[in-house]
Amino acid sequence: MRYLPLAALLLVSNALADEGMWTFNGFPSDKVQARYGFSPSKEWLDKVRLSSARMAEGCSASFVSPNGLVMFNHHCAHSCIEQLSTAKKDFVASGFLAKTEKDEVKCPALEIDQLTDLSEVTDRVSQATAGLSGPPYEEARKKVFAQMENECAGGNDKVRCEVVSLYHGGKYDLYRYRRYQDVRLVFAPEFAIAFFGGDPDNFMFPRYDLDVSFVRVYEDGKPARTDSYFQWSPAGVKEGDLTFVSGNPGGTSRNWTVAELEYERDVTLPERLIVLAQWRGLLTEFQERGPEQKRISTAMLFYVENSYKALRGRFEALVDKPFFAGKVAAEQELRAKIEANAALRARYGGAWDAIARAKAEQRDLRKPLGYVGFGAAFSSDLFRAAQTLVRAAEERTKDNGVRLEEYSDARLPQMKAHLLSRAPVYRDFEILKLTFSLTKLREELGADDPFVHKVLGKKSPKELATELVRGTKLGTDPAGLALRKSLWEKGRAAVDASSDPMIAFARLVDPDARAIRKHFEDDVESVLKKNEELVARARFEIYGTSTYPDATFTPRLSYGSVQGYRENGHEVKPITTLGGAFARATGRDPFQLPDSWIKAQPRLDPSTPFNFCSTNDIIGGNSGSPVIDKEARIVGLVFDGNIQSLGGDYGFDESVNRAVSVHSAAILEALDKIYRAERLVRELRPAPATGAGAR
Amino acid sequence: MRYLPLAALLLVSNALADEGMWTFNGFPSDKVQARYGFSPSKEWLDKVRLSSARMAEGCSASFVSPNGLVMFNHHCAHSCIEQLSTAKKDFVASGFLAKTEKDEVKCPALEIDQLTDLSEVTDRVSQATAGLSGPPYEEARKKVFAQMENECAGGNDKVRCEVVSLYHGGKYDLYRYRRYQDVRLVFAPEFAIAFFGGDPDNFMFPRYDLDVSFVRVYEDGKPARTDSYFQWSPAGVKEGDLTFVSGNPGGTSRNWTVAELEYERDVTLPERLIVLAQWRGLLTEFQERGPEQKRISTAMLFYVENSYKALRGRFEALVDKPFFAGKVAAEQELRAKIEANAALRARYGGAWDAIARAKAEQRDLRKPLGYVGFGAAFSSDLFRAAQTLVRAAEERTKDNGVRLEEYSDARLPQMKAHLLSRAPVYRDFEILKLTFSLTKLREELGADDPFVHKVLGKKSPKELATELVRGTKLGTDPAGLALRKSLWEKGRAAVDASSDPMIAFARLVDPDARAIRKHFEDDVESVLKKNEELVARARFEIYGTSTYPDATFTPRLSYGSVQGYRENGHEVKPITTLGGAFARATGRDPFQLPDSWIKAQPRLDPSTPFNFCSTNDIIGGNSGSPVIDKEARIVGLVFDGNIQSLGGDYGFDESVNRAVSVHSAAILEALDKIYRAERLVRELRPAPATGAGAR
Repeated sequence: MRYLPLAALLLVSNALADEGMWTFNGFPSDKVQARYGFSPSKEWLDKVRLSSARMAEGCSASFVSPNGLVMFNHHCAHSCIEQLSTAKKDFVASGFLAKTEKDEVKCPALEIDQLTDLSEVTDRVSQATAGLSGPPYEEARKKVFAQMENECAGGNDKVRCEVVSLYHGGKYDLYRYRRYQDVRLVFAPEFAIAFFGGDPDNFMFPRYDLDVSFVRVYEDGKPARTDSYFQWSPAGVKEGDLTFVSGNPGGTSRNWTVAELEYERDVTLPERLIVLAQWRGLLTEFQERGPEQKRISTAMLFYVENSYKALRGRFEALVDKPFFAGKVAAEQELRAKIEANAALRARYGGAWDAIARAKAEQRDLRKPLGYVGFGAAFSSDLFRAAQTLVRAAEERTKDNGVRLEEYSDARLPQMKAHLLSRAPVYRDFEILKLTFSLTKLREELGADDPFVHKVLGKKSPKELATELVRGTKLGTDPAGLALRKSLWEKGRAAVDASSDPMIAFARLVDPDARAIRKHFEDDVESVLKKNEELVARARFEIYGTSTYPDATFTPRLSYGSVQGYRENGHEVKPITTLGGAFARATGRDPFQLPDSWIKAQPRLDPSTPFNFCSTNDIIGGNSGSPVIDKEARIVGLVFDGNIQSLGGDYGFDESVNRAVSVHSAAILEALDKIYRAERLVRELRPAPATGAGAR
Repeated sequence: MRYLPLAALLLVSNALADEGMWTFNGFPSDKVQARYGFSPSKEWLDKVRLSSARMAEGCSASFVSPNGLVMFNHHCAHSCIEQLSTAKKDFVASGFLAKTEKDEVKCPALEIDQLTDLSEVTDRVSQATAGLSGPPYEEARKKVFAQMENECAGGNDKVRCEVVSLYHGGKYDLYRYRRYQDVRLVFAPEFAIAFFGGDPDNFMFPRYDLDVSFVRVYEDGKPARTDSYFQWSPAGVKEGDLTFVSGNPGGTSRNWTVAELEYERDVTLPERLIVLAQWRGLLTEFQERGPEQKRISTAMLFYVENSYKALRGRFEALVDKPFFAGKVAAEQELRAKIEANAALRARYGGAWDAIARAKAEQRDLRKPLGYVGFGAAFSSDLFRAAQTLVRAAEERTKDNGVRLEEYSDARLPQMKAHLLSRAPVYRDFEILKLTFSLTKLREELGADDPFVHKVLGKKSPKELATELVRGTKLGTDPAGLALRKSLWEKGRAAVDASSDPMIAFARLVDPDARAIRKHFEDDVESVLKKNEELVARARFEIYGTSTYPDATFTPRLSYGSVQGYRENGHEVKPITTLGGAFARATGRDPFQLPDSWIKAQPRLDPSTPFNFCSTNDIIGGNSGSPVIDKEARIVGLVFDGNIQSLGGDYGFDESVNRAVSVHSAAILEALDKIYRAERLVRELRPAPATGAGAR
C-alpha cells in the first residue's frame, strides 16, 4: 500500500522512459508527446491539479463530483472508519454506506487539501540565506519560510501555505492550499475486500482489491461546491493505454549521496525493520486476546505490516550489489567532472565529504534523537496530546519563524484538529504501546543512561506507563476534550500549573527532547541541507535542470501506460478481473470474500476489469491518486506498487516497476451491484449522453 | 549470555596479546610464559581437559568433585528447570536445592560430554578426498568421517566420537568423548538473581548475577566416579591475576572471506534479527496472557532476547566502517601475496571468487533452504518428534557414511534421548509457535509458491497448526512417549503406516526438505568447504601455522587476566561485590532481588567479590566454562561477555573485549549463607588443611 510514512529494484536513475514524478510547473509535455502522441496543455494541467487533492495525514485523493465528493483508498480512511466504530458496530468489518446525505458522518481527524496556487520563491530564499552556514543558515531559512507562509495565508485557517524545497534545496516553491477540515465518510467496503489477500498479497500482482472509499468535504455544514473535479470513465483503461497519475509522492532519495545510502542500508533500515518486526509480533499476539482487542489494533497492525514490507523492499534494493555499485559509479562520475574544473571544485567539491561527516555524527546521535528528540520512546496518543499542549503553550508565545517547525502557523490548524478530535482512546492499548516504547528506550540508551534514570526512576516501564495512562484526564471523552480545549486556549500558565500526570511527564521530558533535537538540527541537519543543496546544484551544472526533483509529498504528475511485466521467467498480465477474485478465494482470512460479494456473485459480470498495473512512477504517498486518461477522466485509483517497485525510493526500472490500481469499471460495478449505492452511482456516473453505459 | 547458538569489537585479528581459543594439543605455553611467567605443562593441560566438560546442547561445564558434581550456568540449565516445574511448583522462580542425594532429579533431556582422547587425522581425510570436488568430495568426506567415528566408538553408546574440522579444513582431529545421559539437578538459584538486571543488563558490565547451577552425572543409578575434577578456590581471583578459561567456544568467523562477511552483514544477520525481533514481540505479549503462559515461555523468551542482543552486537561490528575496511585490507594483502607467486596462485588463487559465487547462489536458495530444508517453517516440538521418527526410520536403514549428518551413529543416542524425554509439551504454546512459523513460510516464499500450496492448501496457518497440534498423539505424556518409543523401535514400516496427523505432515514435507538441502550441500556447501580449506592453507603458506583455529564448539583453552577497561571515557573496574547488587536493586523486575537475598542480607559480607571480567577470549558456547588459576583451581564461572566482545565472532580487541564470570567466593558465600546448601558446600569446599578458610 503506497501511502506515506512509506515508500516504492531499479537501475540507476536516468530520467528516461516513463520515469519521473514531475511538478505541475515543470511537466515535460514534450516527452509525453514524443512517446505517446499527446501533449498536456497548461489548461489540462491546471484542471488536473485543481481536481486533485491531498489528505494531510499522508495520502492522495481526487474530487469526483461538483458536490465535494472525494475518492481515495480504504486504507487511507481506515483510521477514520475504526474511530467511528464501536465494540457493537464495527464498520471496518461490515463496511459503511451513507444512504442519504444525513447519514454522512464526520471523520474525527481528517483534513483534505487542494493545491490552488504555486509560485517559485528560490531567489527570496537564496537572498535570505546568502553567505550563511550552520545554525545561522538554518535560522534564516526557517524565518524566511515562515514570513512567506504567513503572507500567503493571511491568517486564514482555511488556507494552508507551505514553502517546498525541491531538488534538496536547488529550487524553492511556495504552495497555497485550500484546507477542508469537515470531512465526512460516505462509503467504505468491508476490510476483507479492500485488503483481500492481506499481508501475503500486499505489494504483489496479480491483485484483487477494492481499496476504495469516498468522503465528502463540507463547508459551513453543507457539502462544499467543488467546481474542479474529474469525470468518471465507466469503461476505464485497457492494456497499452496512456495513463497519468496525479498525486503526492511522499519522498524519494534518488539524489542521495553514497554516504547517505550507506547510512540507510547499514543503520536506518535495519533498525527500523527490527522495531517494526517487534511491533508486529506484539500486535499479532495482542489481537489474540479477543475480538475487541483485534478491532482496536487492526489499523495499527496494518500500518506496521505495510511499513515493514515496504522497508524490507527498500533494504533488498540497497543490499543488491549491482544496484549499489551503480550508485557508487554515478557519484564517482559526477565528482570526477566537478574535480576536473577548478571553479566547480572550489564551489562544490567538498559537499560529499561534508555529508559523510554529518552522517557519522548522526550515527552517534541517532538513539537519543529518535527515542527522546522525536519521541519514539513515548508511543501513546495520550502522551501526544499532552506534548502538543505543553509545546504549543510555549511555541505560540514565539515568532512563527523561530518555532519548532510543526508548530508553525501553517500547521497549527491541523494540529488543533487532532488534539480536539473525538477519536477514541483505548487505555489498555495505550499502556501496551507506551510500555513497549519505554522498554525500547531503556534497551537502546541503556539502563544507566541519565535520561532513562530521570524518566523511570525505580519504576518498571509497565508501571510507569500504567500510572500515566490510568492517571491522566486527557482522554477523548467529553470531559477530556473539554480539558484539552481549555488548556489549549488558556496557554502556558495553565499548562505549567496542571497537575495532570501526563502533562507533568511531557513537561519532564521536553527539555531533553528539545536539546537533542537542537543539537541535531545545528550540527547535522543544517550541514546536510546546505551540502545536499550544493550537490543538487553541482548536478544542475553538469547534467542541466531538465530532470524531476526527489518527491516531497507535494503534487506531482507521472505518465505511463497499462503494461504487464516479466517475473521469474513468466509473463504477468496487466489486468485482473472480478472473476479472478472468486477463483483466488479460499474462505479463510485473508483470502475470504465478504458475504456481500458471495451473495452478489450471480449478478456480477466476472469479466469486469478489477485491478491493473501501469508504468507510472509512484511511491508511498501516492495511495489514493486518481489514474486518468487523456480526457482527464478517472480510469482507476492507485493503491499499491508491485514488489519490484519497492526500491523506487532510490531509482526506477521501467521494465518491472509498476503502479497498482483499482479499475474504474470495478468500482462502479461493485457500488451498483454489490453495495446498491444508487445515490453514489448517480453522482459518479456520467450523464447517459456521454456515458459508455456498457454496464 | 555466552551460550551456543550465539556468539562474542575488535580490530583485525593478529593473534597477539591474550587473543586465541587454543586447542589442547596446540596450546602456546611459551606465549603464556613470556607474558605471565607460567608455562602450562602437558600434565597440567591433560588434567584441565579431563576436568572440563560440555553440555551437548550448547554450553560448557566442569567437574567439581570426585562424585560426578558438575557446575555450569543457570541459563544452561534453564530448560531443564522449566521442564521439571509445573503450574503449582515453579523452580525457575523459586530455585531448586536437593537436600539429599535422593532429592536430585533427572533432567529430561541433558547430556554431558567429557573429552577423553584426541588425535589428528588430517592425512586420512586428505587421502580420502584427494582430487575430488563438488558432491563426490562431500560424499567422500562424510564417508571417511563416519568410518573413523564408528571405529572410535565401537558401538558403545557411552562413547561419542566426532571428527572435528579445524582451520576450516586445514586440519582434522578425531575427538573421543565420554557421554553422560543421566544428569540430575542438584542446585539452581532463583531466576531473579541468576539473571539479575535481565535483558537490560545482559552483555553489560558491571554486573551482579549468580548465574550458576549444579547437576550431577549418574552411572547405573549412582553418582558417577569422576577422578578428574577441579578443586575450589574460596578466595578466587583479584585484579591482575592470571586466568584460564577451559570451554567450548561455539563458533567464530575470524577467517571468513570478505564475500562471506558481506553476506553475513547484508543478508544473514538482518534477516535473523528481524525474525528474532518478531518472536520477541510475540512472546512478550504472550506472557501477558497469564502467569502460566509466562512460566512456560520464559526460557524461550530468554533465548530469543539473548540471541537478539548477541547478533545485534555482531551486526554493529560488521557495519562499523573501519572494522570492515580492516577485513578488506587483510584479505587484499593475503591475496596479493598469493598472486605474486605463480605456484601459490595456481593452487589457491581462485578460492576467493569461488566462495563469492557460492554465496551468491546461497542468497537465491536461502529462503526455501531455511524455511523448508532446515525446518524453520515448522517451529514445534511435536513436529520435531514426528520428523525425528520419519527421518530416523529412513536414515537408520542406510550406511552411517551416507546419512543426513545429524542421524550419524555418533549423534543418535542424543537424538533418541530427546525424542523420549518427558519434557512437557504445552499445546497452546505449540500452536502459537507453529502458526507463527507457517505464517513466515507463506510470507517469505509467497502465497503462490507450490510448496506453500502443498502444505497449506486452502487452510490458514493457524487452522493447520491447530489441527496438527491438537490431532497428534505424539505428546510426552506416558501414552505419547510409548507411541514414540514404539515407532522408533519398529522403524520404517510402522512409521509409513502411521495415520498420526503430525507424522503424516512430517512425511509430506520431507522430500522437499531433503531436496533443497541436497541442492545446497552439493552446489554451495561443498564449494564453500573446499575453498575455505584452500584459503586456510593459503594462510598457512603465508603466515605459518602458529595461530589458533576458528571456534567449532570443541574444547579450547584461553588465557588472560582480570582486567577492567575504559568505556565512554571512564574506567570500568573489573570486580563487583555482593553489596553492589543490593545497591542496584529497585524492587522491580528485572532489578528485583529474591526474598532469600533480602532475608540473608544481614549475614552476608557485602565486600565479597561477586562478578568479574577478564581478558580471556571467549564466544557463545563458553557459557559455563570454569575460570581457573595456575593451580587449576576454580576461581570463577564464565556466564557472559561484555557488549564490546560481541563482535568477537570476527576478531578480538584486548583493550575492551572481556569475558564476564561469577567469582568463586560469591558462589560459596551464597550457597552457605543464603541457600544453606551445607551438603553442596561440604562437597565443594577444600579440606581445612588446604582451604583458605577465609569465609
